[in-house]
Amino acid sequence: MAAVSLEIIKKDSQTKARLGKLYTPHGVIDTPVFMPVGTQATVKTLSPEELEQIGAKIILGNTYHLFLRPGHELIRRAGGLHQFMNWDRAILTDSGGFQVFSLGDLRKITEEGVEFRSHLDGSKQFLSPEKSIEVQMALGSDIVMAFDECTPYPCTHDYAEKSAQRTTRWLKRCKDTLAATDKQALFGIVQGGMFANLRKQSAREITELDLPGYAIGGLSVGETKDLMYEVMDYTVPFLPENKPRYLMGVGSPDALIEGVIRGIDMFDCVLPTRIARNGTAMTRFGKLVIRNAEFADDFNSIDPTCDCYTCKNYSRAYLRHLIKANEIFGLRLMTIHNLRFLTNVMREIREAIQEGNLLAYKQKFFTEYGYEK
Amino acid sequence: MAAVSLEIIKKDSQTKARLGKLYTPHGVIDTPVFMPVGTQATVKTLSPEELEQIGAKIILGNTYHLFLRPGHELIRRAGGLHQFMNWDRAILTDSGGFQVFSLGDLRKITEEGVEFRSHLDGSKQFLSPEKSIEVQMALGSDIVMAFDECTPYPCTHDYAEKSAQRTTRWLKRCKDTLAATDKQALFGIVQGGMFANLRKQSAREITELDLPGYAIGGLSVGETKDLMYEVMDYTVPFLPENKPRYLMGVGSPDALIEGVIRGIDMFDCVLPTRIARNGTAMTRFGKLVIRNAEFADDFNSIDPTCDCYTCKNYSRAYLRHLIKANEIFGLRLMTIHNLRFLTNVMREIREAIQEGNLLAYKQKFFTEYGYEK
Repeated sequence: MAAVSLEIIKKDSQTKARLGKLYTPHGVIDTPVFMPVGTQATVKTLSPEELEQIGAKIILGNTYHLFLRPGHELIRRAGGLHQFMNWDRAILTDSGGFQVFSLGDLRKITEEGVEFRSHLDGSKQFLSPEKSIEVQMALGSDIVMAFDECTPYPCTHDYAEKSAQRTTRWLKRCKDTLAATDKQALFGIVQGGMFANLRKQSAREITELDLPGYAIGGLSVGETKDLMYEVMDYTVPFLPENKPRYLMGVGSPDALIEGVIRGIDMFDCVLPTRIARNGTAMTRFGKLVIRNAEFADDFNSIDPTCDCYTCKNYSRAYLRHLIKANEIFGLRLMTIHNLRFLTNVMREIREAIQEGNLLAYKQKFFTEYGYEK
Repeated sequence: MAAVSLEIIKKDSQTKARLGKLYTPHGVIDTPVFMPVGTQATVKTLSPEELEQIGAKIILGNTYHLFLRPGHELIRRAGGLHQFMNWDRAILTDSGGFQVFSLGDLRKITEEGVEFRSHLDGSKQFLSPEKSIEVQMALGSDIVMAFDECTPYPCTHDYAEKSAQRTTRWLKRCKDTLAATDKQALFGIVQGGMFANLRKQSAREITELDLPGYAIGGLSVGETKDLMYEVMDYTVPFLPENKPRYLMGVGSPDALIEGVIRGIDMFDCVLPTRIARNGTAMTRFGKLVIRNAEFADDFNSIDPTCDCYTCKNYSRAYLRHLIKANEIFGLRLMTIHNLRFLTNVMREIREAIQEGNLLAYKQKFFTEYGYEK
């Protein structure tokens, strides 16, 4: 039996949205789901217990970062990433591809893999499909992502085509490397830039490998949201109905709703945690820059309708004070709120699919609530 | 009835130590007690719930910092410091004296008070006995400290004498300013540098005011620990038996034990939280600099005998990784451990007084455990 599988509970009649259950070795996850990012073996500022209270059932780890520090062999000796960081729910690890390709002049791509300089100490390092999978096997994540190239935007048709073809060849090497196991599942990644024919070709090639899940990569890289939605529109139809679909790097509430409507089951993004630490709260009414002077004397919670620990116990005035005073507790409280907000949005989306009124929910979200994209 | 009072449960027959209960408007505190410092309306990195789990029943707030940011009037409007920071146990606030006197060239002392420049924006500010009490009344702390001068070390007899006399005059103004209330209690502070005659004179003058509690200030300012103990030895006898005695700014485990033996009931210090954030753990075997390379591959907890959340769930290797990677969760975990360690030491001290074996406990602490001062 596969380590990871998707049971579809209900399909929306008006959109491509699906309500599902994602089975993993570390628990069952209701989908569609948003996955908080825990780059360096910690979701920044939070404890595992806080993540559980927020409702997180799966988080991300970053192969690039953990490979460089503290090193995957150390985490293997610790008993794997779950045990190292005291998190017993599911973990998805990325492949490191996105980070090494982002290094620009500091990396050199060959068919074999990518040679690069560590951002920590400048040391020469190498990641390849085989190495990335080996690292992820040491980490012991439930979902292992293929080592791919996330093409930049904009990008020529020629580059996107060659890159997507290499990503397919690399995927085969990833599949060959991952040991047969019922503990880890490999997801392939569709690339192809913003070109419909390349996306179609990439999707067809990678789905031939019959993997337990598929991601759409190379989006949310600088293109407009409308273009991102367009790529989803013409890519998702080439992905199998019965496998989980993961849209990488997307976490704004509007894009989550639009992604679900287009048939996406899984999302991740550093946005909610990153802007939290910058003093910005996500709410259904848009973003609140809590560090602004207007909140200095405001004794309301961030959002009176929110059920998070922060909103139940602390005022905007207190949060602003903590952030202005560079107090770590402020970063924690903001992070808790933003992640709980997205968790609640995803729960509402799932309830809307269950009740058959997802489009009405979308309308309410954008119009009645006045959410600013 | 006084807002704060001490019930002495047991006096040690071999030392001056006392086991007590400190009654405050926000709960009863077992003494001797160590009080964590929450300078800017937060004990750095921690939530109120975590402080409760650690066993903290009283924390400190800093008048100087809160006066400048966010301002005491804002905290008054929030309903006081307890409500502002969501802490319903006891709070002691210092007077701001220590901080403004530490500003050196940035402050000017007159009989009226201290004019100083804010460390935040350079603005001209003024604190006096009246102003400090007014600020602390707005904060609503359970224990209000007198506005004093903490004399530097070393310091001439002449300066220490004049300063201690002014501190006494200021104390009378503090007492006159604090509104009659059963919600807040004023503690006076003995000064007098390292001079026995001045300490005696200061203690006699301030105890004449019949306040609900007394502190020994001006220690742990650079003198040797032996000199500090000597000052306690000749100062404590001039403090009333039935009032709480608070040794300001002391938090190393050895000094806590020596202080209790000399009749001290209350302590505070930034040491445990500050060194935690620098990656140093306090244990009964001495300090562990967790960021050191020797712990990179060490999957033991900080102290296998410790019952704190950190030691129950995380390895030295994980803590070192978090600290090296500048991850906030590491600072939280270290802070939890250090505060729980001191809380446990204080509990053991109280148990030793109860059982009549405090000197044996001291012996065990310094010899058997091999604690390095």
